[in-house]
Amino acid sequence: MSGAGEFELIAEFTRALGVPPSPQGPGDDCAVLKPRPGQLCVTTDATVEGVHFTRPAFSLRDVGHKALAVNLSDLAAMGARPAWVLVALGLPRAFKRREVRALAAGMGELLRASGAQVVGGNITRSPVLSLTLTVGGHASRPMLRSGARPGDGLYVVGTLGAAAGGLLPQAPASLVRAQRRPRPCLAEGLRAAHFASAAIDVSDGLLQDLGHLLAASKVGAEVDSARLPMLPALRRFAAGRALTLALTGGEDYALLLAVPPRHARAFERAVRARHIGTVTRGRALRVDGRLWRGAAGFDHLRTT
Amino acid sequence: MSGAGEFELIAEFTRALGVPPSPQGPGDDCAVLKPRPGQLCVTTDATVEGVHFTRPAFSLRDVGHKALAVNLSDLAAMGARPAWVLVALGLPRAFKRREVRALAAGMGELLRASGAQVVGGNITRSPVLSLTLTVGGHASRPMLRSGARPGDGLYVVGTLGAAAGGLLPQAPASLVRAQRRPRPCLAEGLRAAHFASAAIDVSDGLLQDLGHLLAASKVGAEVDSARLPMLPALRRFAAGRALTLALTGGEDYALLLAVPPRHARAFERAVRARHIGTVTRGRALRVDGRLWRGAAGFDHLRTT
Repeated sequence: MSGAGEFELIAEFTRALGVPPSPQGPGDDCAVLKPRPGQLCVTTDATVEGVHFTRPAFSLRDVGHKALAVNLSDLAAMGARPAWVLVALGLPRAFKRREVRALAAGMGELLRASGAQVVGGNITRSPVLSLTLTVGGHASRPMLRSGARPGDGLYVVGTLGAAAGGLLPQAPASLVRAQRRPRPCLAEGLRAAHFASAAIDVSDGLLQDLGHLLAASKVGAEVDSARLPMLPALRRFAAGRALTLALTGGEDYALLLAVPPRHARAFERAVRARHIGTVTRGRALRVDGRLWRGAAGFDHLRTT
Repeated sequence: MSGAGEFELIAEFTRALGVPPSPQGPGDDCAVLKPRPGQLCVTTDATVEGVHFTRPAFSLRDVGHKALAVNLSDLAAMGARPAWVLVALGLPRAFKRREVRALAAGMGELLRASGAQVVGGNITRSPVLSLTLTVGGHASRPMLRSGARPGDGLYVVGTLGAAAGGLLPQAPASLVRAQRRPRPCLAEGLRAAHFASAAIDVSDGLLQDLGHLLAASKVGAEVDSARLPMLPALRRFAAGRALTLALTGGEDYALLLAVPPRHARAFERAVRARHIGTVTRGRALRVDGRLWRGAAGFDHLRTT
């Protein structure tokens, strides 16, 4: 820890976030949050060195950004407005103060854009760098995975496969950036919540996350692979593998939405999204008319 | 991971908690929590192998218990009623399903007693076992560190020094238990919130945590060391070191409270607590009349 104690490092981190400290903490045993309208949505997600990122491929700014982005993406999928963040850091023994500042700087930029405040956290020693964030946000009508109905359109906000492409050797800069600096689709999630019947964020691969949505909604789906939104750079670079990456590659943090036909036009005017398929009766998932049987996708416990 | 994926392990963990799954999640991208009366208090705290515990000195049930206890203690210090818990687990590669169940079983007992529900979480791989929990609770009038005023009585709920004593060789069972199975003072915190002007939980040692309370309140204090609540087993076992352990040993998760004189009698009837001193003008902390200058106590980044 370079001799710095927990309280000094917390102060260092908080300063480097570059946002004014919240009036509601940190500093007490808990942060105290005034009630706000809407329902409270909370989630927690960990970003661990050697599992979710490696150094120096990822800069510490990348790591700070991504640790927050993956959590905010879960709020986006609920259509929730970010309100507060708790940051639990596990720092290796040799970790330096300037490295703490770099993590905070990467997180601070996205934090300011999101409108959320860091209201507390915790720093401890750890054999590898880890960031476990908890975020809270408010939604008047949260989108769940379980609301899709036969006939709903399936839409994707953002692009697919780029983050997985960014892990391949010699990947172009736009794909590498998609892997290291994913953008949570917060504004789109907020607008989509007025129209969508169900939503999930695409963290583990389109087909796996679509599978979760279908299982929760007890429905099936038809997907047209020609319609999947992909960066031109992905098609050029990965050629024959681009479609597989778009169907099964994780970490894009795109939004997958089901929208009832009566809302389709208004939704399409309000949210920039790609129509990729349709919710169907039964429980089958078909891609281009063929039954999909795989449990493919990205499981952080299994694959890296 | 013994071949089990994240989703199977989450199911295994949830079953072994032995509490019915919350209707408000897990399963969606966020847990959705209905508004409740009072202000929301949230905190996060990590428990990491090799830093906060070692195996086999700690059983996995101990680890599960303690990871939740340290978080609930922060709610106790605010006078908040526990409502929900998010559990982020970092599991080593060789970790087995029955080990996941043991963690959950140790957590489940305390969870049921607290009245809180696990509403979500995350499992990832990690080089060492780590548990980062976030808890939320509600308080109509949260106790802060900053409310103490000169003339307030200082009180301790629980005992001091036992958990630190439990780390010494040949420590008796009651001290070992205090280290491995600390009891958060939730009921006492809820009752104390009607009377106390300030509160903190004693996680880093009495003098260090009292120092935080005094700094936040911009006051000083007189402490009478003869009044500190200690287990008889600590006095017998540690003899000459017992007082040092009570003043500076961490991890007791006792509550330290400041109570205005006008509430003293009602407080003493409502809460079983030991009167250990008085809040004073100025910023000095005196123990038995002598100025205390140390920054002693327990800093998880520095000492283990």
